[in-house]
Amino acid sequence: MPRKRKARLAHLAPDGSPRMVNVGAKPVTCRRAVAEAYVTVGRAIASRLRRRGGLAKGDVLVTARLAAIAAAKQTSMLIPMCHPIAIDAIDVGAAVEGPRVRIAVTVSAEARTGVEMEAMVAAAVGALTVYDMVKSAGKGIQVGPVRLLEKEGGKSGRWTRPEVRHAAR
Amino acid sequence: MPRKRKARLAHLAPDGSPRMVNVGAKPVTCRRAVAEAYVTVGRAIASRLRRRGGLAKGDVLVTARLAAIAAAKQTSMLIPMCHPIAIDAIDVGAAVEGPRVRIAVTVSAEARTGVEMEAMVAAAVGALTVYDMVKSAGKGIQVGPVRLLEKEGGKSGRWTRPEVRHAAR
Amino acid sequence: MPRKRKARLAHLAPDGSPRMVNVGAKPVTCRRAVAEAYVTVGRAIASRLRRRGGLAKGDVLVTARLAAIAAAKQTSMLIPMCHPIAIDAIDVGAAVEGPRVRIAVTVSAEARTGVEMEAMVAAAVGALTVYDMVKSAGKGIQVGPVRLLEKEGGKSGRWTRPEVRHAAR
Amino acid sequence: MPRKRKARLAHLAPDGSPRMVNVGAKPVTCRRAVAEAYVTVGRAIASRLRRRGGLAKGDVLVTARLAAIAAAKQTSMLIPMCHPIAIDAIDVGAAVEGPRVRIAVTVSAEARTGVEMEAMVAAAVGALTVYDMVKSAGKGIQVGPVRLLEKEGGKSGRWTRPEVRHAAR
Amino acid sequence: MPRKRKARLAHLAPDGSPRMVNVGAKPVTCRRAVAEAYVTVGRAIASRLRRRGGLAKGDVLVTARLAAIAAAKQTSMLIPMCHPIAIDAIDVGAAVEGPRVRIAVTVSAEARTGVEMEAMVAAAVGALTVYDMVKSAGKGIQVGPVRLLEKEGGKSGRWTRPEVRHAAR
Amino acid sequence: MPRKRKARLAHLAPDGSPRMVNVGAKPVTCRRAVAEAYVTVGRAIASRLRRRGGLAKGDVLVTARLAAIAAAKQTSMLIPMCHPIAIDAIDVGAAVEGPRVRIAVTVSAEARTGVEMEAMVAAAVGALTVYDMVKSAGKGIQVGPVRLLEKEGGKSGRWTRPEVRHAAR
Repeated sequence: MPRKRKARLAHLAPDGSPRMVNVGAKPVTCRRAVAEAYVTVGRAIASRLRRRGGLAKGDVLVTARLAAIAAAKQTSMLIPMCHPIAIDAIDVGAAVEGPRVRIAVTVSAEARTGVEMEAMVAAAVGALTVYDMVKSAGKGIQVGPVRLLEKEGGKSGRWTRPEVRHAAR
Repeated sequence: MPRKRKARLAHLAPDGSPRMVNVGAKPVTCRRAVAEAYVTVGRAIASRLRRRGGLAKGDVLVTARLAAIAAAKQTSMLIPMCHPIAIDAIDVGAAVEGPRVRIAVTVSAEARTGVEMEAMVAAAVGALTVYDMVKSAGKGIQVGPVRLLEKEGGKSGRWTRPEVRHAAR
Repeated sequence: MPRKRKARLAHLAPDGSPRMVNVGAKPVTCRRAVAEAYVTVGRAIASRLRRRGGLAKGDVLVTARLAAIAAAKQTSMLIPMCHPIAIDAIDVGAAVEGPRVRIAVTVSAEARTGVEMEAMVAAAVGALTVYDMVKSAGKGIQVGPVRLLEKEGGKSGRWTRPEVRHAAR
Repeated sequence: MPRKRKARLAHLAPDGSPRMVNVGAKPVTCRRAVAEAYVTVGRAIASRLRRRGGLAKGDVLVTARLAAIAAAKQTSMLIPMCHPIAIDAIDVGAAVEGPRVRIAVTVSAEARTGVEMEAMVAAAVGALTVYDMVKSAGKGIQVGPVRLLEKEGGKSGRWTRPEVRHAAR
Repeated sequence: MPRKRKARLAHLAPDGSPRMVNVGAKPVTCRRAVAEAYVTVGRAIASRLRRRGGLAKGDVLVTARLAAIAAAKQTSMLIPMCHPIAIDAIDVGAAVEGPRVRIAVTVSAEARTGVEMEAMVAAAVGALTVYDMVKSAGKGIQVGPVRLLEKEGGKSGRWTRPEVRHAAR
Repeated sequence: MPRKRKARLAHLAPDGSPRMVNVGAKPVTCRRAVAEAYVTVGRAIASRLRRRGGLAKGDVLVTARLAAIAAAKQTSMLIPMCHPIAIDAIDVGAAVEGPRVRIAVTVSAEARTGVEMEAMVAAAVGALTVYDMVKSAGKGIQVGPVRLLEKEGGKSGRWTRPEVRHAAR
């Protein structure tokens, strides 16, 4: 939970109107971000996803991984204030963990601005893809949390989410 | 939580490979879906979003609403197995509720297949947009849950999420 | 110039927030719209565009026509409150008229909502494409007016722009 | 109005066929462009847009600003000969001026080619968005002029539109 | 090989300019098209694709299938004269056949115009995706032929490619 | 035909799952790729395309060239493992050669990864566009081969397709 007293909302101009922050003066550095998203599918579906061997077993998860990669590349079209970024790498893991599917995404780029939103969007779309593919088997399924685990590069340096310092992929 | 024993994963062919379900034989009916997504921003940011009067007050929320509308229209590009649908209406609400921002989306269409994913994707992208615009003020922020509240049309009829029967917008 | 006293802004909900108008209850009718856009390129460039014979002569204009067709199909991605529409036909003319290039676009569809924005967007993008291709030859070039000439279908019936009743293609 | 005698059409190869100019040999410099677009909405609608206070007042204009930002990022998809550019900043103003709405856009990037078309496309789409949102209140509305006000960076240096040297935002 | 003497080029207007054919007067019928595309990868890579068991085995092929599905949905953005179509079903097979990978795509829709290009584009993009994923293992790889196998619906009725009447999936 | 014994499939992680190769550590160098694609249209259509003089003659070919340029810019959206690249130049030739149309594409960029797929995708989409525009005149038409002719830049240096060393544009 954020504790900073004086919240600065970077995407609002002084008059409160939305703007795309100018990153032109920032140096190009190596940026990296890791995000995760969960889909709570329930034990029945989770075991279905785990049980099916061979090719079939991977297909919901492989589809979700590919959807996540594609979504990372569309981030600046989806999130109004995001800059287009020439992403260097996108790595997506997808695994069944108990009654949930976890999507974990690492994005990196040499850029003037971070790739946090690319990782967040990719994780969320990966999770929504799992949801889409299993929703016919149960309507109570839900997506979340979607959250940042790590961030590196830029003037604020490295950040790791406190409560998950050991869980990051 | 889904309780159905025999989970049917509609988007997998019998050999387990992913496919886009054939909706050609389904009748065109009036489809409607309502989904919601939360962003836990913390009390400091929430009160910032609530306090700023006039034009400024709405801007994070208006930006999120517009991002949600745009995302609903891109659903079939983001979710691999989704059909392109000629959406009739998208209605997006955005409000600060305690330490969270809630995005609620209603989508409707005359179509052969439901608009559940359109509502889910729109709600998620609306929430991710809020996240993007306030993230500079606190890194612990997280998105979720993203979930379906209601669904109408098609052979399965109307469904309302049990635990939120009164909360749906 | 519009003269209606009581302007109704259809894309604003009663509380003033933007929304995508619900067209679900409207009947599917045959919609058609004609729009035009001008680029004032100046006499020197106009005569260049007119003089060059054979294949070359058409290329700025052919490029503009194709850009217009492509843009019509992207209208719902560009204009926030536009519905996705299955366009039946797009017809684009491009011609040099004095010191100007005129792009004229006719769009038609069987739809619940009009294709006015498709025609307007196509005409504007066609004109911007001409601008892009000749701008190296003179910086004072400008685009406009972009305006609707005719509209047909839907409950408001046929409308023709008064001052151009004879000029419509 | 352009006065150069010998118009060079950069986007045509010697045989007159369209091509994307090779910018590979150009140095990366700081590019900036300012463009504006007008929508003549008439006094009745203009005063409606001006009168409505608080949140509501901004919504047509805020929607137009966000549409302009999104369009700038899609420029290379819309204008056939435009290069994809990693935009650093997009700043969009929208204001009611007499019977017209004016959209003013500044785009900047560190790039091998200019951002003139990004600014022009953004301004045009912002104006078309205003048009879309008010068109139900009067059919005579028109868009234009759309024009460049300033351009900076690259070998041609800084250029300011003569007749508007004082009006640029 | 086509043998018709009098070739009619439907996408050219009488003056030879490109246009999007008007399909508004055509009835909505059930359209279906099957296309295939080959990638000649050579025996070494083919056996690699065939040998790798379990999850891994499918991944190049699954990725190609998903790319094909996504591409089918983008057809009207890629092929200038294609109409946007609400596709009902896309079914993609991918298999290693001797030294080649074969992508076979069936697309269907209730529409005013055929889905031939959707099937062709999907097959081609599926094949190009295989090419992309194996190209590091050998530069001589090539894509083709890409061709229609069957077409159904519309006034021309059913057509099957003569030489492959038995091979269609 | 590839002859390398030990095929390395770069887009598969050690566990066989698809991934976007990390290009962050690669130096930015000048990349160039040339690809070609053929459409076998038959002699009747070929002579139609050749015969029609003036403006008309070029239109199928000009449309194909523009479609190829647009597709090159969309490569990272179409091919799942492709990185977004800021392309510097796209040059597309289209010519009738006997019973075939040949599309030849040269793409260049200063980038960390090659532009091979950009050239391949552009050539394929150019050829598919020709196919679309002439298909009403004969169903047996087919696309292919689509293949790389040259590649330059990056650590593997320059490569030219052996059998076509003299034919490259």
